[in-house]
Amino acid sequence: MNNIAGHRVMRRAMPRMAAAGVLAAILTISAPAQQPAPQLPEPAKTDPNVLGLMQGFPPPADKTVRLGDGTAWKFPMTRWSFSHMRELVPTAAVARGAGAASPLPRAERELDAIRFQTMSGEAMTFAEALAKTYTDAVVVLHKGRIVYEKYFGAGGTERPHAAMSVTKSFVGTLAAMLAADGKLEPSALVTKYLPELERSAYGDATVRQVMDMLIGVKYSENYADPNAEIWAYLRAGGMMPTGADYNGPRTFYDFLVALKKEGDQGVAFGYKTVNAEVLAWIVKRASGKSLADLLSERVWSKLGAEHDAYFAVDSVGTESGGGGLNTTPHDLARFGETMRNNGKLDGKQIIAESVVADIRNGGDKGHFAKAGYRTLPGWSYRNMWWVSHNEHGAYMARGIHGQNIYIDPEAELVIVRFGSHPIAANPFTDPIVLPAYATVAKSLME
Amino acid sequence: MNNIAGHRVMRRAMPRMAAAGVLAAILTISAPAQQPAPQLPEPAKTDPNVLGLMQGFPPPADKTVRLGDGTAWKFPMTRWSFSHMRELVPTAAVARGAGAASPLPRAERELDAIRFQTMSGEAMTFAEALAKTYTDAVVVLHKGRIVYEKYFGAGGTERPHAAMSVTKSFVGTLAAMLAADGKLEPSALVTKYLPELERSAYGDATVRQVMDMLIGVKYSENYADPNAEIWAYLRAGGMMPTGADYNGPRTFYDFLVALKKEGDQGVAFGYKTVNAEVLAWIVKRASGKSLADLLSERVWSKLGAEHDAYFAVDSVGTESGGGGLNTTPHDLARFGETMRNNGKLDGKQIIAESVVADIRNGGDKGHFAKAGYRTLPGWSYRNMWWVSHNEHGAYMARGIHGQNIYIDPEAELVIVRFGSHPIAANPFTDPIVLPAYATVAKSLME
Repeated sequence: MNNIAGHRVMRRAMPRMAAAGVLAAILTISAPAQQPAPQLPEPAKTDPNVLGLMQGFPPPADKTVRLGDGTAWKFPMTRWSFSHMRELVPTAAVARGAGAASPLPRAERELDAIRFQTMSGEAMTFAEALAKTYTDAVVVLHKGRIVYEKYFGAGGTERPHAAMSVTKSFVGTLAAMLAADGKLEPSALVTKYLPELERSAYGDATVRQVMDMLIGVKYSENYADPNAEIWAYLRAGGMMPTGADYNGPRTFYDFLVALKKEGDQGVAFGYKTVNAEVLAWIVKRASGKSLADLLSERVWSKLGAEHDAYFAVDSVGTESGGGGLNTTPHDLARFGETMRNNGKLDGKQIIAESVVADIRNGGDKGHFAKAGYRTLPGWSYRNMWWVSHNEHGAYMARGIHGQNIYIDPEAELVIVRFGSHPIAANPFTDPIVLPAYATVAKSLME
Repeated sequence: MNNIAGHRVMRRAMPRMAAAGVLAAILTISAPAQQPAPQLPEPAKTDPNVLGLMQGFPPPADKTVRLGDGTAWKFPMTRWSFSHMRELVPTAAVARGAGAASPLPRAERELDAIRFQTMSGEAMTFAEALAKTYTDAVVVLHKGRIVYEKYFGAGGTERPHAAMSVTKSFVGTLAAMLAADGKLEPSALVTKYLPELERSAYGDATVRQVMDMLIGVKYSENYADPNAEIWAYLRAGGMMPTGADYNGPRTFYDFLVALKKEGDQGVAFGYKTVNAEVLAWIVKRASGKSLADLLSERVWSKLGAEHDAYFAVDSVGTESGGGGLNTTPHDLARFGETMRNNGKLDGKQIIAESVVADIRNGGDKGHFAKAGYRTLPGWSYRNMWWVSHNEHGAYMARGIHGQNIYIDPEAELVIVRFGSHPIAANPFTDPIVLPAYATVAKSLME
């Protein structure tokens, strides 16, 4: 059960038995890994409105979602909390600016009935795929028009949702933008910007290695392991409750400086959220701006976003660059469309074309292959984006519990999806949504 | 030193000696009341940018503002924190809706040099008055046009600021709107809506008595007394840090049900924040909506606000109706202008004319006089608004540390001001700003 990371598939096939263990571990946080096969709850029955979560003044005790008692991170309460993060933790606004929202024209298409085969050979419709993956919101843009959108559970057009690790792709894009401007030197050592990390895992790493997650650092993203560093990281960032006797780090900074080396730099892709936090720190030092202000200034205020986005912040106001961003589905679609248009939206070049091209070209496939993702064969990772290298040149931003920006340049397609899958591991959604997205792409090209 | 409440003046004159005690008590929270005369720090030197608060990644330890260690509530850190509340506590958005912002036309006037006399007879200019009261933002509208605006410290047009008890006037207005719609019965007992309060101080009170703060409840708003209930209230709401061994209430609800009776209902005005929390609870029960959603639906989404407003919330997502609202200066000015226009903005009737008229008419002056506010002679309180009954019929929303909406119907004037005065008691700002506002009004009428 090693390496069930945020966006990782296990190195062997994913039988139901293994899924069981992960589910149980996630639900109880402390259960042993191997357990009997799980029956995932029927998604419609976990709709927070159906369950009556957080309804009434006050809500009944057993329907109340709190950060302090850990309920906010327990399924099915996550089906509410992922759409209400700012009500649980402090946040920093990513200002939209004062201008009007950019148009999102519509040209609706019936996509529900599109049929495809999952990676395990099961026949399924697109509508079934969305339901089975605990989708909260999905928006499909074709040639810049909304052809399809659906909301479930707590999701809605105006409702910001936790983007989870989709956040990392924003940090990677900002870093690449600063590099294109000559304000950040990817070939430099991390310590050029963060001398504090000299004695940490990052002491001999370059910025580029951080951007592409080629770092040898002792840090486990295995959500099924209660001793994995991901939990300590979340506690340091204020995103998980800490007991009364907690005396660990209370900021991302304090957590990062203590990370130890494990393995070599620059030889293998290793998906670790702390790399995104380190990159966010580098980006702040290089730009002199907070992540929220930089994202607002360089991207969000130029997109014609309808709403401020926001980051979860730690006890000293530091945005989580690893997973703290929350946006509405429409605004995330605007960003995806900007990427699809090689950095342009509404005639404005927001992100340099060379930055998008660098992402689309992808990273080193050999380095990536060493991580052993069964559902992502031939993929690579560049500037914190996941690149498929398929015949359409599709690439993705990917977050735990099923958050996606899927960009298919050949099909002129952008799919934005937010979800709240019970299991914190994309192997449970990838075998369904990746073939679904590819089939939607082909269908729209016909 | 009794009764130094959020918006109260001491029953005797306010000599410098008394101010000293309050200042010291506020700054240390536990110091005894009487101390040598204070020298209030020079406001410009407490500008958070000048002090370098929260600058750098991370900020230096002695320039860091946190909730957990109490620094967020200590002056001069408050000059930063009052403009960054969402970075410190969980919040709920008051959605602005998807429409364009309503126009705020400009017709600038020079007001800095306007001269007036403070209540203690000191000659001062308007510019000096703003500086001396630690103003962060001020916007003056005359006949619906911005004639003057200034920002200091952390303030800015796009920067939401803690409105503190200005929040209460929103709750009172919403209650009056529901009453006008027949959805809330002011003459009913509180227990009609909140049977949970049967055995509390509110068991024999009417909704109207809550709306006008005519409640006999044991609750001290004396910020200078470390044992005052205001501190327990703030801890229950998650706005103040709690120690590791804290086992008091963690929600507003749990705090409110435990309030005990002291004195009689309906005979004297007693400014107590908990009355606004009880009214917010009533409003939620009567409308079936959260305070944030109701304010958005009924007011904020109709104002053409530029930005979502937000409420600080407790550990179960309950908005603070006593002091949790944060808005940008421009959006608060839009609300003030709506009130001035008898509920109308841009040709739309947002708040019923009868609701505004009821507020403008004010409450019982005899009840109000019993509270002994030296700086507010002849005033009254209605629907959580402060009514001057002066020759212009001016009325106000008032918050601690100097938050104001000042509406002068006769002069067609609205003044919105945010401040971060070191002392949590308006007797230190009223003797300056009240004559200043009146003089500005007269000047604009010339």
